[in-house]
Order: sequence, then C-alpha cells, then structure tokens
Amino acid sequence: MRTAYYISDGTAITSEVFGHALLSLFPIEFNHKTIPFVETEERALEVLEEISESFQDTGERPLVFYTIVNLEIRDIIAKSAGINYNFLNQFVAPLEKILGVPSKPEKHRTHSIHETTYDIRIEAVNYALANDDGSNLKDYHEADVILTGVSRSGKTPTSLYLALQYGIKAANYPFTEEDMGDMLKLPTALRRFKQKLFGLTIQPERLHQIRSERRANSRYASIQQCRMELREVENLYRRERIPFLNSTHFSIEEISAKILAETGLQRRKY
Amino acid sequence: MRTAYYISDGTAITSEVFGHALLSLFPIEFNHKTIPFVETEERALEVLEEISESFQDTGERPLVFYTIVNLEIRDIIAKSAGINYNFLNQFVAPLEKILGVPSKPEKHRTHSIHETTYDIRIEAVNYALANDDGSNLKDYHEADVILTGVSRSGKTPTSLYLALQYGIKAANYPFTEEDMGDMLKLPTALRRFKQKLFGLTIQPERLHQIRSERRANSRYASIQQCRMELREVENLYRRERIPFLNSTHFSIEEISAKILAETGLQRRKY
Repeated sequence: MRTAYYISDGTAITSEVFGHALLSLFPIEFNHKTIPFVETEERALEVLEEISESFQDTGERPLVFYTIVNLEIRDIIAKSAGINYNFLNQFVAPLEKILGVPSKPEKHRTHSIHETTYDIRIEAVNYALANDDGSNLKDYHEADVILTGVSRSGKTPTSLYLALQYGIKAANYPFTEEDMGDMLKLPTALRRFKQKLFGLTIQPERLHQIRSERRANSRYASIQQCRMELREVENLYRRERIPFLNSTHFSIEEISAKILAETGLQRRKY
Repeated sequence: MRTAYYISDGTAITSEVFGHALLSLFPIEFNHKTIPFVETEERALEVLEEISESFQDTGERPLVFYTIVNLEIRDIIAKSAGINYNFLNQFVAPLEKILGVPSKPEKHRTHSIHETTYDIRIEAVNYALANDDGSNLKDYHEADVILTGVSRSGKTPTSLYLALQYGIKAANYPFTEEDMGDMLKLPTALRRFKQKLFGLTIQPERLHQIRSERRANSRYASIQQCRMELREVENLYRRERIPFLNSTHFSIEEISAKILAETGLQRRKY
C-alpha cells in the first residue's frame, strides 16, 4: 500500500485535511502517516530517511503533503524521495498580486492559540458539560442553541463538537419517558427558549441498535419503545415548528454544519 | 473588508481549512463566510447572487474557495463574480497519472459518516465523559491515555478533542490538594497504568488568571497556591518520568497533536 505523509512544523492539520480530501477522490486505500512539529533540521532529516524507507519497502513513491514555514526545514523536506506537494505554495504568488501585499508566513498561525478564541472555546465546552442531558435548566438564557431529542440521538457529541470547533454554547435536553404521557408536550423549561431549540431525530432501527449496545433486551432498547419515542418527538417538532434533523446518515461534522446553516448561528471561532 | 467564501455541497470543512491556511499567510483581515450543503442549482444561483452583492458592496472581488462534486452545481459556482479557487482540481489530473487510476469523486466522502469510525468516536466521547475529572477509577484499563494535571490545566477539553477528532479514549485525573501532603506521590489508582499517563502543566500566572475567573480571591485561585500545586506536579512528572507538556501557549489542537506525536498513540479515525 502506498504511504501518504502529512508533514508540518505545526500540527499538520492543514496538510491532513487537504491530502485526505484529494486522496478521497480516488478509489484506493492509502497508509496515512502524520508527522507534526518537524521543527529542527535533524528531525527533518529523520523524516527524509523514513520516506526513503517507505519507498524502498513498498516500491511505490510515497505522497508527501506538507506546509512548512521555516525555509531551511522546508528545503530539506522538498528533497524527499516521495512525490512532494507543497500545496499551498502555488497559490501564494498569484494571491499576492490580487491582494497587492506580500505574504508574511508565520509559524503556527492556523491552528495555534489565539487568546480570545481559546477562552471562548473552553467556556463553551464547560457550558456544554454543565448543561448536558438536561442537568441544568437554569442557564438556558446563556445558550446559543438547545439541542433536544430522545436518549442516544446524538445530542451530547454534537454539543461538544459545536463548542470545540465553533465556540458555540449548546445545551442539550433529553425527552424522557416521563415527558411522554398521552402526548409529548413541550416542557415548561424549554418553552421560554423555543426559538433556541433544535431537534435531533434518528431512525428507529438505528436507535434500537445503539440502545441495545447499552442495555440489551431492555424495554428502553426495544424497537417498539424507540418507535414510540421518535414518533412523539417528531410530532412535537412539527406541531411546535421546531427545526429538526434526522441524524442517522450524518457525521457529527455534518450535523453541526447543518445546524449552523439552518439556524444562522454565528460561530465564535474560525 | 474583502470577503472569503468557503462553499461546498458537503460540510465545506475542506474549503475552510485550505482557505484559512492560505489567507493566514497574509497580514490582512477577511470577512469569512462559509456556505455548506449547496446541493441544488437554485441554491447555487442564490450563492452567485450573494457573491455579486458582496463584490458590489465592498468594491473588492471576493475570494471563493470551493470543492463541489456535482458537476452542474460546480459549473454554476465557477461563474461567480469572485476569484474562484477550485483548489483541489488542479492536483487531480497529475495524480491520476501517478496513481494510474481515474479519480472517482463521491459526494460527502471526506467528512461524512463511516459506520465504524462513527461508533468509535461516540464511544470515545462517552468514555471521556464517564472518566472525566477522576470520576471513575475502575475503567483505566480501557484508556488509551490518562491525562493528569491540576484543576484547570486543560485536561477535559483535550480529552474531548482526542475523542472527537481521533477516536482516542482519554481519561483524565486531577491532582487535588488532598493528593499533596508533604510531597505529591503518584496515587495508587494511577500507578498500575503509569505507562498510559501524560501530564499537563501550565504557567502559574495563567492558571491564577483562569482560576480567578472561576473563583475570584479564593485560596484556590491565589498565585501562591497555583505555584505550589504546579511545582508539586512537575516534580512528580520528573521523578516518575511521566511525559508532560506545558499547555500555556498551545491550542487544544496543538496539545492533542503533541500528545499523539510524543506517545505514539494510534488514532482510530483519519
């Protein structure tokens, strides 16, 4: 299998995202290898050695995606035995013309710390944790969004992702069986904040599967129970005109991006 | 201010990461605008309109970074009034030659759901929450890594990021004042799992600042207390040869990437 390297003197997140997106266009498997924080010439030479060995072992030239600010280190990696993609570079000169200013690369600018956004994200994570699973009904005025749904429909991971990636404060409230008498009504704690609500739902079969992993053969996990709860919440969403999303076929990234797109929520971090 | 658009028929995460990395090379501010899930020609035409308006309003041609799998939609966006970067595209033909196979773009392949990795990440998030803040000492055998440090040194956000981005199960254990008598010793619960430990530390001044936001003027937040606790944990890390990192100047992304690089932990998700 051919190796794809993602190399940087920073986190290498940019190289990973770019390389993965490009390679995902091909119906081939790769051996992915990330090497972050290549910050010395010594380390860069070790990396060259590793790339050479991969070439010798597999007989296929590795693909090397890199973004490196330090010029000496960049020059070393550029000599690797792989096929080298200094993929940001070719956009720089034309963009300098368009913008009318020279580029000014600084190390770690993309995924490094920015005092203000850092605090915002940590605060958002703390908020999500303190307001997870309906554990705290009195801080909803602070929420940017309140995710609702039945147990195991994806609320908690989504609220944490919104916090970490976007600095968005997402509370989450689980509809439980107690909420469902004859008909699920919007709980009083949520009614005041109705315009902040965003509903998640999921296919009954998938929910049954997820709950069975947690409590096999329980009533909680039974397909009948899953169907009943989901029917109730979906009816509620429609009746109360709460925007909602079926999460079954979407990743956390997709669910989060869709919530942002649908609600018009402004992220606090780019 | 010039607008930078990130457009996709998927999440637009790839466009964002690429565009941000490129623009971060320039000492200029941009108005960033992400438009995900452009999945119909109608929507694409609306986006064109928005780009035109931004051009007219600002007098500066917007930069438009896009990855779009659907050809009809791609052709529409390619005609925008902005400066259009179909930035993956120019790498495709040369890579087809190298790999010897034609590309086969599929919608949402990069940031969409993959049954196996999805479950792994959700499980890792649940693990991190169940093993947050020393709340559960009996599941450490399942941990990929156990983060240690004093209160507010960044353990929880890091453990959640490791779970969401990499599917890594990270427990975290806080050293509290009770652990520190004459000298901080490695708690019994951790000794068995010593090879899984990774320590976080932070500058006393920064810790004082963070704790003061939480409990102003408390002993907990005092600079003396912060200094004492950090001295104790750093001594412990050195004495017990626990790898550790000073998180003061690093983002969550950087801390996580450094932990992976230093421990050799294998991520479960790419």
